[in-house]
Amino acid sequence: MPYTYEHPHPAVTVDVAVFTVSDGRLAVVLIRRAEWPHAGKWAIPGGFVGIDESLKRAAWRELREETGIKAGVLEQLGAFGRPDRDPRERVITVVYISLAAADRLRLEAGSDASDARLFYIDDLPELAFDHSRILEHAIERLRDRIDTEAVARQLMPARFTLTDLQRACEAVSGDTIDKRNFRKKLKTLDLVEPTGGETQSGAHRPAKLYRVKS
Amino acid sequence: MPYTYEHPHPAVTVDVAVFTVSDGRLAVVLIRRAEWPHAGKWAIPGGFVGIDESLKRAAWRELREETGIKAGVLEQLGAFGRPDRDPRERVITVVYISLAAADRLRLEAGSDASDARLFYIDDLPELAFDHSRILEHAIERLRDRIDTEAVARQLMPARFTLTDLQRACEAVSGDTIDKRNFRKKLKTLDLVEPTGGETQSGAHRPAKLYRVKS
Repeated sequence: MPYTYEHPHPAVTVDVAVFTVSDGRLAVVLIRRAEWPHAGKWAIPGGFVGIDESLKRAAWRELREETGIKAGVLEQLGAFGRPDRDPRERVITVVYISLAAADRLRLEAGSDASDARLFYIDDLPELAFDHSRILEHAIERLRDRIDTEAVARQLMPARFTLTDLQRACEAVSGDTIDKRNFRKKLKTLDLVEPTGGETQSGAHRPAKLYRVKS
Repeated sequence: MPYTYEHPHPAVTVDVAVFTVSDGRLAVVLIRRAEWPHAGKWAIPGGFVGIDESLKRAAWRELREETGIKAGVLEQLGAFGRPDRDPRERVITVVYISLAAADRLRLEAGSDASDARLFYIDDLPELAFDHSRILEHAIERLRDRIDTEAVARQLMPARFTLTDLQRACEAVSGDTIDKRNFRKKLKTLDLVEPTGGETQSGAHRPAKLYRVKS
């Protein structure tokens, strides 16, 4: 059968789950949808892929337009394409995961989003489309793949205490971590260094501040 | 901006990389393309997703049509969508990985495929589209994820020697494995059992045959 362009084509979107750690808890950036369908509901930021645009480029652009975030590394989670997942038409979405330090997130809603906010993953609102299911997969992938180095390099502010770093690792993994083992592991990894004399202000017992080695 | 259906849509395909171990070497099923573009070249089997068809269902159907294989578990590798990857139009492809025991593969070319064959992954022909790059990613994912249990359950024939199983694990991982450690690990996994008295025929020194515990 010769090739024809006539068979019906689906629409293709990209969605980006941006994770961060805020107040020692794992959180994700969501936008409030301004348009039908699911207007008013919260959703993972994303939108349609331009016909000449790469998937990753579209993910970066949509995230920027809807939340103001300029993503760092974008890792693809996969494609989600149940035929009935969108009431508009057949929409297949390709989902990306990104990590960001909470102190570098300046959320600014735009495009089809009326609001953009951080939500703790253990306290999520009702989500549009199949985004709850997608987010479950994204969290599973994140927990499967992320290690101490990725947490330190991508999720921490410029200066942090070792307790902050441990809390972030615990938030991402969902498990508690033994402090002594964690400190030993950090030494082996040779990942962080003291900033030099600075201590966290306002703490009951001041703790040294560290930064990631470059 | 209200939603319109008017923006140009890409085509979406699925492709399935079916891996097996044949003669102790890792191999993949390829089809020979019968149609333009890349007619006559070898490719990963696949084709267009029906407008009401799930991605996984399309992958299963296309694999069956082009190679005769009824896939078992299909694991999604991800979406590949460089704008220039197909000369026909913008085509985004969602790629799946599947495993099959070589003795259960009965290849029968059909649909857009003029031939279907096994190729060793270290002796591949020139491939159509970006399928060389896709196959590299698929092999990397396979090596990343597969373990002894998956090799035993999905890649081995009904009866095999422990040496066969070790060879298959080596072929999949790309590394040599120490025989004593491997035998110890097998005991710990409690994964295989002797079939009972049977031995491999024709061997210089007969070896016991095993099967996977159910």
